[in-house]
Amino acid sequence: MQFELTTDYLDSLKEAIEANDSIGLKARLEELYPPDIAAIIDQLDSDDAAYLYEILDEETAPKVLLELDDDTREKLLETFSSKEIAEQIDNMESDDAADVLAELPEDIQEEVLSHMEDIDQASDIAELINYEEGTAGSLMAKELVSVYAFETVSQCIDAIRNQADGVDVMYAVYVLDTHDRLIGMLSLKKLIISHPLARIEEIYDPDIHYVRTSTTSEEVAEFMQKYDLVVLPVVDQLGRLVGRITIDDVVDVIRETADENIQRMSGITDDVDSNDKLWRLSRARIPWLLVGMCGGIIGSRIIGSYEEEIKIRPEMAYFIPLIGAMGGNVGVQSSAIIVQGLANNTLIGDEITPKLAKELSVGMVNGLICSALIWGYAYVIEEWKLAATVSISLLTVILCASFLGTFVPLTMNRFKINPALATGPFVTTLNDIIGITIYFLVGHLLYIIL
Amino acid sequence: MQFELTTDYLDSLKEAIEANDSIGLKARLEELYPPDIAAIIDQLDSDDAAYLYEILDEETAPKVLLELDDDTREKLLETFSSKEIAEQIDNMESDDAADVLAELPEDIQEEVLSHMEDIDQASDIAELINYEEGTAGSLMAKELVSVYAFETVSQCIDAIRNQADGVDVMYAVYVLDTHDRLIGMLSLKKLIISHPLARIEEIYDPDIHYVRTSTTSEEVAEFMQKYDLVVLPVVDQLGRLVGRITIDDVVDVIRETADENIQRMSGITDDVDSNDKLWRLSRARIPWLLVGMCGGIIGSRIIGSYEEEIKIRPEMAYFIPLIGAMGGNVGVQSSAIIVQGLANNTLIGDEITPKLAKELSVGMVNGLICSALIWGYAYVIEEWKLAATVSISLLTVILCASFLGTFVPLTMNRFKINPALATGPFVTTLNDIIGITIYFLVGHLLYIIL
Repeated sequence: MQFELTTDYLDSLKEAIEANDSIGLKARLEELYPPDIAAIIDQLDSDDAAYLYEILDEETAPKVLLELDDDTREKLLETFSSKEIAEQIDNMESDDAADVLAELPEDIQEEVLSHMEDIDQASDIAELINYEEGTAGSLMAKELVSVYAFETVSQCIDAIRNQADGVDVMYAVYVLDTHDRLIGMLSLKKLIISHPLARIEEIYDPDIHYVRTSTTSEEVAEFMQKYDLVVLPVVDQLGRLVGRITIDDVVDVIRETADENIQRMSGITDDVDSNDKLWRLSRARIPWLLVGMCGGIIGSRIIGSYEEEIKIRPEMAYFIPLIGAMGGNVGVQSSAIIVQGLANNTLIGDEITPKLAKELSVGMVNGLICSALIWGYAYVIEEWKLAATVSISLLTVILCASFLGTFVPLTMNRFKINPALATGPFVTTLNDIIGITIYFLVGHLLYIIL
Repeated sequence: MQFELTTDYLDSLKEAIEANDSIGLKARLEELYPPDIAAIIDQLDSDDAAYLYEILDEETAPKVLLELDDDTREKLLETFSSKEIAEQIDNMESDDAADVLAELPEDIQEEVLSHMEDIDQASDIAELINYEEGTAGSLMAKELVSVYAFETVSQCIDAIRNQADGVDVMYAVYVLDTHDRLIGMLSLKKLIISHPLARIEEIYDPDIHYVRTSTTSEEVAEFMQKYDLVVLPVVDQLGRLVGRITIDDVVDVIRETADENIQRMSGITDDVDSNDKLWRLSRARIPWLLVGMCGGIIGSRIIGSYEEEIKIRPEMAYFIPLIGAMGGNVGVQSSAIIVQGLANNTLIGDEITPKLAKELSVGMVNGLICSALIWGYAYVIEEWKLAATVSISLLTVILCASFLGTFVPLTMNRFKINPALATGPFVTTLNDIIGITIYFLVGHLLYIIL
């Protein structure tokens, strides 16, 4: 069913490339779909990649180009002339073509556009690359079929014959008023089962979802998911139909957003994957490591200020890792719930208080359980003063961590900063510092008082 | 554009419910789409929820029912008789109806089916609930339009008129051989622009993607994403067409998988959101907290075994949090990259060695940077022996954490355990213990040797 790329398969392809066996390779590639061929090319070095790409037929090559990793595509396109690039994107859907073009330097963009044979396609692409990244305008494609409300079903079918040329899959026909403003849609099913002489205005569905070109990609994704839409028309500020977004582009947005959240929560600042270059992987991780290190240094100063106490009671040091780890774990759990609620829009209202109250209740329940257990352990193994210190500070730390894990992402979200950033390393580092402070403070007070 | 549920809006609705103002409420709900109404009902208590649901018209009610939270729906359905449930699911798409029915106890399922008016629908649903959860069979719907290859375009259009009754949106017509086996598809666009007397076998597209009823949901999601499919036919073991899966159901699978990964990585064992009950939220988090506590206790024993040294050199205790935090951070970073690569299928091949080598290289680069910085700090603030201890053990800990963060999820994946489980708390706890061991071992050796 599905093609599975193995290292054995890759090795045998590399051998065939080495042996310059273009006929054999062509036959093998013809059995595969474009995404599979792209996955292969992603794994090859630049020369082999270019060689394999050259072998592809005219129809397959642009589809493969689209499915390539950004890095691979960039390198491959560098070996092409502007005219060759123009040939590749001439037959792509307008949104895909604009995506490819947008990755090139501006002077080359103009050259490529000037070399395109299809003038309409060129002007569509020129329009699309001007929309800001991350907006509905940058996601949409120009290929769609529209009719005026005053036309008949049979005129509409003629329009489909004429306009449907560049449309790969067609889900609906959009209905416009005489000012080109979107007023509704007509499902193909309805079109097929209606009388040829029926007027569109009598049968179309005026209840239609749409977005503006300036709507953000995340809002588009949320919107299409919420209302289970497969295709969504895009209008300009005057309400005129200018394009449409399909669910497959939105699936990519959903996936990328989820990936980004996981990376931010894990302390990775840049969008990387394990195939990226060493220095890029390293650079994406070092910032939060340095933050963590600063946290550790602050922690060392706090512990340092209790030097005399540690000399007298070295057992105070034993539970430093436990306090730190528990604060970190609870903070991550709380903030993950909040980040997810924000991402899925299941947190309603702007009020922080009820969410804090709930998280603090959960923290109290789990904190009491953990504190009771650690009290028992430390009492049996050490003595009651240490047991009291550890259990009281553990409960306090868990409550603090619940508070920060809830408060920090909610606050960052209010200031339009990605709350996932706050979740992993930031909350963990903060909780580490607070945890140690509480632990030594409680220990200090208990020994003085008792 | 999009309805935003605020606490103010919710309060005003609650007041209207209190005042029994069903006419006013009806008018207000009519302005909203089913997902928005469902979001409101999710926030109400059982009585108010039932009251509001009763007000909905026949067409809207089943759509709202589908969009409700599982918990809310369960509670709402408990107040219904089997006959009332049958009325609700009679007009749903078969896959949705089967999903609702599957949540009910088995004896009630039978009762509901026996009360359904549409016998065909009842038998479709009875078939669908038998497929195992998490397979293509459980995701698919029975509503589709199919024709035989020997028929003509005009016969096909008649078939659409007859079969398309239950089909909400139609993307394609499936083409069958005389044994009902799926042999290809026909796009509606092609159908509209073809001659009425053309035979299907002359115009259909035999190159079609499909899955079997036993294919897993994750494979279906991956497959549809990879090949950018909007709808995917499902065949039985004999290759006969039995249903189809649409992308909107798969979007839910993608989202749920991503959510689950984030939760597992954050040490949450059960699928919860912030609207869940206190005890459920607490229960989902306590297991990994207890694991973290065991880790902390083991850590305390290790430090305890160096009690005499801490008495002499209390400054050894200062850097315990730093070592622990850095091991945790690096481990989470490494494993996040691996978990993501596994989820997105960008890690090819079965070999662990090259991935380990890469992660260890990244660890070495970042480890050297961090160690150099901490050496400088500790040398200036403390003295060179402590500086050497901290920097050598930090480098070792970062390398160990890179190794474990890569090795553990890859190994768990090989044994078919969700690697996200391994990423957060497990790797962090392990790294904590290993970090402390290395730190005190290095410190001990350095002071003995030098």
